[in-house]
Amino acid sequence: MRVELLTVGDELLLGDTINGNAAWLGRRLADHGVEVTRSVVVGDEPDVIVAAVESALDRADAVITTGGLGPTYDDVTRDALAKAAGVDLVRDPALERRLRERVARAGRELQPMALRMADVPEGARLLANSAGSAPGLRVELPGGVAYALPGVPFEMRTIMDEVVLPELAETAGLPSVARRTLRTARLWESVIATRLAEVEAMDGVKLAYLPDPAEVKIRITVAGRDAAERLAGVESRVRELLGPSVYGVEDESLGLVVHRLLLDRGETVATAESLTGGLIGAELTATPGSSGTYAGGMVTYATDLKRRLLGVPGELLAEHGAVHPDVAAGMAAGARDALGATYGLAVTGVAGPDPQDGRPVGTVYIGLAGPGGSLTVAGPKLPVPGTGPEIRAVIRRMTVVHALELLRRRLLGLDVADESGEARADREDRG
Amino acid sequence: MRVELLTVGDELLLGDTINGNAAWLGRRLADHGVEVTRSVVVGDEPDVIVAAVESALDRADAVITTGGLGPTYDDVTRDALAKAAGVDLVRDPALERRLRERVARAGRELQPMALRMADVPEGARLLANSAGSAPGLRVELPGGVAYALPGVPFEMRTIMDEVVLPELAETAGLPSVARRTLRTARLWESVIATRLAEVEAMDGVKLAYLPDPAEVKIRITVAGRDAAERLAGVESRVRELLGPSVYGVEDESLGLVVHRLLLDRGETVATAESLTGGLIGAELTATPGSSGTYAGGMVTYATDLKRRLLGVPGELLAEHGAVHPDVAAGMAAGARDALGATYGLAVTGVAGPDPQDGRPVGTVYIGLAGPGGSLTVAGPKLPVPGTGPEIRAVIRRMTVVHALELLRRRLLGLDVADESGEARADREDRG
Repeated sequence: MRVELLTVGDELLLGDTINGNAAWLGRRLADHGVEVTRSVVVGDEPDVIVAAVESALDRADAVITTGGLGPTYDDVTRDALAKAAGVDLVRDPALERRLRERVARAGRELQPMALRMADVPEGARLLANSAGSAPGLRVELPGGVAYALPGVPFEMRTIMDEVVLPELAETAGLPSVARRTLRTARLWESVIATRLAEVEAMDGVKLAYLPDPAEVKIRITVAGRDAAERLAGVESRVRELLGPSVYGVEDESLGLVVHRLLLDRGETVATAESLTGGLIGAELTATPGSSGTYAGGMVTYATDLKRRLLGVPGELLAEHGAVHPDVAAGMAAGARDALGATYGLAVTGVAGPDPQDGRPVGTVYIGLAGPGGSLTVAGPKLPVPGTGPEIRAVIRRMTVVHALELLRRRLLGLDVADESGEARADREDRG
Repeated sequence: MRVELLTVGDELLLGDTINGNAAWLGRRLADHGVEVTRSVVVGDEPDVIVAAVESALDRADAVITTGGLGPTYDDVTRDALAKAAGVDLVRDPALERRLRERVARAGRELQPMALRMADVPEGARLLANSAGSAPGLRVELPGGVAYALPGVPFEMRTIMDEVVLPELAETAGLPSVARRTLRTARLWESVIATRLAEVEAMDGVKLAYLPDPAEVKIRITVAGRDAAERLAGVESRVRELLGPSVYGVEDESLGLVVHRLLLDRGETVATAESLTGGLIGAELTATPGSSGTYAGGMVTYATDLKRRLLGVPGELLAEHGAVHPDVAAGMAAGARDALGATYGLAVTGVAGPDPQDGRPVGTVYIGLAGPGGSLTVAGPKLPVPGTGPEIRAVIRRMTVVHALELLRRRLLGLDVADESGEARADREDRG
C-alpha cells in the first residue's frame, strides 16, 4: 500500500516550523508496513492543496494531510477537501455541541471563529480526536482516500494511532519488510560505511546512515521472504563488524541505556557540568524513573564555583585555567562526593565560538570518578564543524554523547578509548 | 521568483530524520524575497528524483535539492541530475585531486567509494563547498535550473549563503514583502488570534501562528507597496494588543533576552532545578557570553539534596514532599546564596507521566529569590497534553519557559501574573 503525506502550512515553507509531523508519520507508517512514497509541503491556499491532493492520489492509494483544521483564518484544509470532493461544507450540530461543551469545561470562552471546526465536507467521516477539539476527516475522492489530521502533534498522533493506522494496516496486510535501527556513538559515518561494505552488498539488504553530532544511527532494511529471520542474521553481522560502539537499538537514547545499566547494578551517578550547562542532567532525567539512578548535579559554570562547590584546587585553576584534565578529574570526584553518588561524571571544555583559557574551540575533558577512588579522564578532540554559530550547540551535544558513552563503557567494562583513537583514556584506576 | 525544494533521502520518508534543511532553506529564501511554493521529499531512487525535479520545474523557476551527494551507495542525486539533463557523469580530475588532498590533510584514509564525489554531470557548474568535501552542482534543465546541495546542514548552508543565494537574489530583485516574527510566552494561541482579529482583517496583512509548548511565535507578513513601513505600523498595533507577553523578536530566545537584561544591570542568576534536570541552565548557557550573567546551578533531583545542598528545611520536605511553593522558595534562596548570584531561580514539580508526592502531573512551582530577600513564587497549572510519553518532555519545556518568563518580567518590573490568570504570584517581596 502506497501513501503520500501532505503537510499544509505557510510556516513550514517559510521555515518557521520544522516538519516533525511528517517524520513521525513516516516512521509510524513504515513500522506498520505502509510505504510513504512522497512527502509534500504546501502553503495555506485551498487551490494548491486541492491540486496536491489530486496529484498524490494519481500516484498513491491514500494521502494523509496534516494541518489546516484549526480555528484561525489560515486553516483552509476543510474547504480544500470539500472542493476536491465536489461537495459543500455542512455544519455538524453534534460536533458543534461537543465543541461548546469542551470549551466550557476548560473554563474558557468560546471564540466565534472556533465554530468553523464544526463544519464538515458533506459525506466525510469524522475521525474521533480524544486529545483535542477538531476531529480528523476521512474523505473519499476519485483517486483514493484522503485522511485529514490536525497539525498539533499529539492530537495528530492520537488520531493516527487510535483510528487511521488500524484501518490502513488492515488494508495493507502483513509487511514483507523488516527493519532495525542500531545506534552507535563516536564512530565516523564513512568508517562505519566502509566496515559495512560487505553487508551493503547483500541481496535485499539496504543500509541507511543517519548521522547526528557524535552519533550515527544505522537503519537496516531487509525486504523479501523471511525478512525477519534474515534481518536477525544481518544485525548480528553488523554488530560483529562495529563492535562495542553499538550502544542501543531503535529509540533507546544513551541516557536510557545508562539509566538501565546503573539500575541493574543498584548504582547512581552525579554530574558536574561546565560547557554543557545542564544538558547531561537533562538527558539523564528525560527517562521516567531516572530518580533511581541520577542523584543530581552541579552546573559550575563560573570557574571559581569549581573550587567552591566541588573542591577543585584553586592553584590548579589559577595555573591551568578551567579546561584541563585534572580539573575534569577533580570535578568528577567532587560531584560524586558532594551528591553522594556511586559515580561522578564531569565535563569541562571550550564550546566556542571563541577559544578559552588559551585552549582552542573543541577542547573537551571528561572526568569519571568511580567507587574506591578510581578515575578515568578522556579528552576527545572534537572537530570544529565550520565556523558558524552552530559550533557551540554541536560541541555541547557531542560532549554529552562522549561523556555518557564513557560512563556506559565503564559500566560494561569495555575499553574506554575510541576505535578511531580520537578519545584517549589518560588515566585509569588512580586511587 | 518561484522556487521549489526537493529533499532526497529515504531516512526522511521513514521519519528517522526531521527535515531541518527544508525549514532553514525556506526561511533563508523568504528573507531574500524568494518564494518557496512547494517542498517535496522523495527517497533515494534516481527515477523518482528525476520525475520530481521535472515536475518542480514545470511549476517553478528553480529547484533546490538537498541530499544524495555523499560517498555512500544510497547517494544517487548526481546520477539523477545527469539523467534529467540527458548527459553522462564525468570524472573531474581537479576535484578528485582536491578530495584526495583534503582527506590526507585530515590524517584519514581515502575510502575508494568516496571518489564518486568527483563525478560530475557533464556541463554542470560546481558550487564551491568551503565547509566540506563534495561541491554542490548547478545543472541547467529544460524547465529551469536545479541547484543540488549536500545534505549535511552546515555544508548546505555554507554553499547557499556563499554561492546560491547571491545568484538567486540577483535574479529575484528586491522583495516587495516585509516580515517580522514576534515571540510571546504563556498566552494561548486562540486568545492571541482573537485579540489580533482586527489585524488579520487588514489588507495585505497575513498572520501565522507558530505554537510551541508555552510559547507562540506570530509571523506578520505585509505585502505590497511600502511593505516595510506598513509592517512597522502593524507590529506596533500587535504589540499594543498583546501587551507584555511579547518578549522578543525573530530568533531571540528567552535565554538570550534574559541574558541581555541581566548584563545591562550587571546582575547574575543561579538556578536550582528538579523536574527540568538542567534544561534551564542549558538554555541560559546556549548564549555565547552567558558566563557574564549565569553563575551556575544545582540539579537537586533527589529530594534530600534540596535539604543538603540548598538548605530547604527537612521538616518541610517531610511534611509536604518536594512539590510545594515553600520548597520552590527555599530552593531559589538557597541557589542564590550558595552560588553567590543576584537572583536564584528554582523549579520543582511533576513532569509525569506519573503523579508524585500526591500531586498531579503538571503541578509546577517556580521560585525566584532576589536581592534583599525578595521572593516570588508562581504555580502555573500546566495543562496535560494527552496521555502519551510526550507529557514529560512537554511539561519540562513549558516549565523552562514559565521560569525564564517569570525572571524576565521581574527584571522589567512587569506584572508577574499571567493575563489568562493561569500563573499566580503567591508571594511578593517577602523579606
